Amino acid sequence: MPKAPKTAIQPTRAEDYPEWYQQVIRSADLAESSPVRGCMVIKPWGYRLWENMQRALDDMFKATGHQNAYFPLFIPMSFLEKEAEHVEGFAKECAVVTHHRLEPDPEGGLRPAGALEEPLIVRPTSETIIGATYAKWVQSHRDLPILINQWANVVRWEMRTRMFLRTAEFLWQEGHTVHATSDEAIAETEQMINVYADFAQNWMAMPVIIGSKTPAERFPGAIETLSIEAMMQDRKALQAGTSHFLGQNFSKAQDIMFQAENGERQYAWTTSWGVSTRLVGALIMSHSDDDGLVLPPRLSPDQIVILPIYRDDSQRADVLNYAESLKGALSSKSFLESPLRVAIDDRDMRGGEKKWHHVKRGVPIRIEVGPKDMEKDSVFVGRRDQSKSFGMNRDEFVAQVPAILGEMQQNLFDRALKLRMDNTHDINNESEFRDFFTATNENEFHGGFANCHFADEQSIEPLLKELKVTIRCVPIVDNDEAGTCFSTGKPAEKKAIFAKAY
Amino acid sequence: MPKAPKTAIQPTRAEDYPEWYQQVIRSADLAESSPVRGCMVIKPWGYRLWENMQRALDDMFKATGHQNAYFPLFIPMSFLEKEAEHVEGFAKECAVVTHHRLEPDPEGGLRPAGALEEPLIVRPTSETIIGATYAKWVQSHRDLPILINQWANVVRWEMRTRMFLRTAEFLWQEGHTVHATSDEAIAETEQMINVYADFAQNWMAMPVIIGSKTPAERFPGAIETLSIEAMMQDRKALQAGTSHFLGQNFSKAQDIMFQAENGERQYAWTTSWGVSTRLVGALIMSHSDDDGLVLPPRLSPDQIVILPIYRDDSQRADVLNYAESLKGALSSKSFLESPLRVAIDDRDMRGGEKKWHHVKRGVPIRIEVGPKDMEKDSVFVGRRDQSKSFGMNRDEFVAQVPAILGEMQQNLFDRALKLRMDNTHDINNESEFRDFFTATNENEFHGGFANCHFADEQSIEPLLKELKVTIRCVPIVDNDEAGTCFSTGKPAEKKAIFAKAY
Repeated sequence: MPKAPKTAIQPTRAEDYPEWYQQVIRSADLAESSPVRGCMVIKPWGYRLWENMQRALDDMFKATGHQNAYFPLFIPMSFLEKEAEHVEGFAKECAVVTHHRLEPDPEGGLRPAGALEEPLIVRPTSETIIGATYAKWVQSHRDLPILINQWANVVRWEMRTRMFLRTAEFLWQEGHTVHATSDEAIAETEQMINVYADFAQNWMAMPVIIGSKTPAERFPGAIETLSIEAMMQDRKALQAGTSHFLGQNFSKAQDIMFQAENGERQYAWTTSWGVSTRLVGALIMSHSDDDGLVLPPRLSPDQIVILPIYRDDSQRADVLNYAESLKGALSSKSFLESPLRVAIDDRDMRGGEKKWHHVKRGVPIRIEVGPKDMEKDSVFVGRRDQSKSFGMNRDEFVAQVPAILGEMQQNLFDRALKLRMDNTHDINNESEFRDFFTATNENEFHGGFANCHFADEQSIEPLLKELKVTIRCVPIVDNDEAGTCFSTGKPAEKKAIFAKAY
Repeated sequence: MPKAPKTAIQPTRAEDYPEWYQQVIRSADLAESSPVRGCMVIKPWGYRLWENMQRALDDMFKATGHQNAYFPLFIPMSFLEKEAEHVEGFAKECAVVTHHRLEPDPEGGLRPAGALEEPLIVRPTSETIIGATYAKWVQSHRDLPILINQWANVVRWEMRTRMFLRTAEFLWQEGHTVHATSDEAIAETEQMINVYADFAQNWMAMPVIIGSKTPAERFPGAIETLSIEAMMQDRKALQAGTSHFLGQNFSKAQDIMFQAENGERQYAWTTSWGVSTRLVGALIMSHSDDDGLVLPPRLSPDQIVILPIYRDDSQRADVLNYAESLKGALSSKSFLESPLRVAIDDRDMRGGEKKWHHVKRGVPIRIEVGPKDMEKDSVFVGRRDQSKSFGMNRDEFVAQVPAILGEMQQNLFDRALKLRMDNTHDINNESEFRDFFTATNENEFHGGFANCHFADEQSIEPLLKELKVTIRCVPIVDNDEAGTCFSTGKPAEKKAIFAKAY
């Protein structure tokens, strides 16, 4: 076998995808594991990426009429018990606070003391604590709708964790809304999954499928869960955001009632919706390559990094001046209505090492400027989505850079969409289904998305368990053709997307 | 006694200051208590205020070279034990997680299960968990300085809580930096208290005194704590921000070492600094009056609210058009480099009720526009810092509004500074000191700031305890004149500010 060209990330995706993922995170300085089981440290580069995601989403939430607020970190244990399915879903993985101080342990060190009368749960999600507050706020139909979002940390005691994708503590936003009618609440649920799809596609350059979850995959306590599902480069699905129509389940459990215009007391209709730092994991696995992180320009903390090249101190001042003036010219340009984010890296470091530092961190455009470039009034440009670099006239580059970034943003989306299209198949029978999810291609990536008619969830459950495949969602669009279940042969109204999943 | 004029807030400041504070919060819709002991719900208007504070501070942190990151919510109990003074300071008031799931209780309901091997503390502050990470990051002098900030929630199990001022959970930022030399770390500590003072004075319109804390008042584990202290309207002091020089205490406890240029392995020097949602409490008590919240224009979520006045539907459309066009004209203006934040309130509500709604929420400028104003091309303006309203030509108002807001911002600062000057006294003997803090004026507000020479903390402690007075700080500026201790008569090098405090 011929030796593969050396890549910045070892192992490559084809060699060991899960390990490649960890190494991309490590070499991009995005995050690292912490001394606390299952919790991670989000490092500055990773946090700036998350801040950019937050800012974009927050603007979209506000544009659709939502306001931010903040609710307690803790939930009294009795609150969780009120909605039966909900507690069933979260009781097995929650951090429980039982004491409120520490005292010296006679055997040395400290021990918990001051037992609480009622244990407190660190919020795994906030439907119950927020609902208890809404019950006080909602009196009349005039108080509705309530359209509130919260940016917060939550804790779910996962046994098998993985940076960004599944961690005990994670950062997220959770929207919680209350409406006077079922229709309004359903419209809100749909609006928010569309906001998430818009963000995924237009900011993250990540194509997604919008669909509804089957009963077994729904949020505990929801009537309907809508999700966006994306395909990662190993052909697995990743659920990137969910929006839940909760019906009157939570308002009944928590007594969220209002007086309607006709004077009648009615239970309200609620929704909740969220995305989390998991999106960072989705972003990594959508676009990155064997040289490290690849970031869509719209979200990258820096969109352009200027690397001054000089041999000695006599050249240094001139080159840095040139770099500063270039930075000024670029920063005055905009990309999709935001001023360009440009950095100069003038650290004392070997040129090659410095270049690879930024390649691995996914910076969309690198520009090298040295004395020769200054003479010719040119710049030497490296695009993260292409392997070769090229020289360009300075002013021409400055004029064209928004178009170049736009092209890169589109390239990433197109590449991800092509991967998904190439690996999505309509499958009509069980043996083909089985082959699809067990055959191993040269990269050892299995399957992809199987698009199959199915009649009911229960009867295919053993097959799915055996193959470690799940029903990702029942797509909302173009899904009206009836057929027969790929496995049972029973008549089926809809198709679903089946895949292995994160 | 003549009947006092009716005020929007009952009781008034003079009648019952603590209850007035709660009522201002309630009528401004800033926050409310939650079903979880000691935790509050920050409502949208309060949260927008906090977001504006965050944005301004975050920009200042970034301008001084800091980056944001995120560290775990939990701290293993053993970490807290490493720095003796630190654990002493926090062990008595921390939320302890001891279990990681819930199981059905044979007696009904749920009970904690899955005991953790080592209890986890919900962070009361993050020196220990962040330090453990820094110990891995810092190897060489080239890795220094580390200049990182985190926006986070923290928990201190306070027994007596008060909204914004002292809550079990609160939101804050905590900066944690590492330096190669003591001088650099001290310079950082001073820089950050100056950033806080700048923010307090130029954004919050709240005059502050910068000083150093005496040993008994220092942050547990710090060598030096600098603070900013402000006087509230009841003459009490409020500590609004602190910056700590931690020396090598934490780096020794956590093994943060680096190889210096000369090859020697050395312990690093660290700092930490923070402000919290407590600033919202400080803001309320600095400026608000007996009609409710008063907000400095620079931080107010809305700076101007337009109230359309119309009698019937035939007038409605015209008035709303006029209001929209006015909003457009105003939004295109800037105040201190930010575009004006303008809202229209066209809810169906009585005019008086609507006006008072915004008075109580502290909106700096209210504008009423009705058919008559449209005819005359005028607007009717109410300033929150003045009691009378006035008519003004529309275009003239639009042109002058940044200057008006600037004047209001300055007025609030001047008023607060005058209150502090009027209630700060140089005191040289114990009997005067005792009188100052026990005499009751007509409003039942005691004392103020006593500016006194003092020799040592221990010998005056009984007196301070008796009078419920604390040493707020030893001011940094204009404090070089020696004298004699007001209480013991011993020679004293510095003066300190003494006050009752929040």
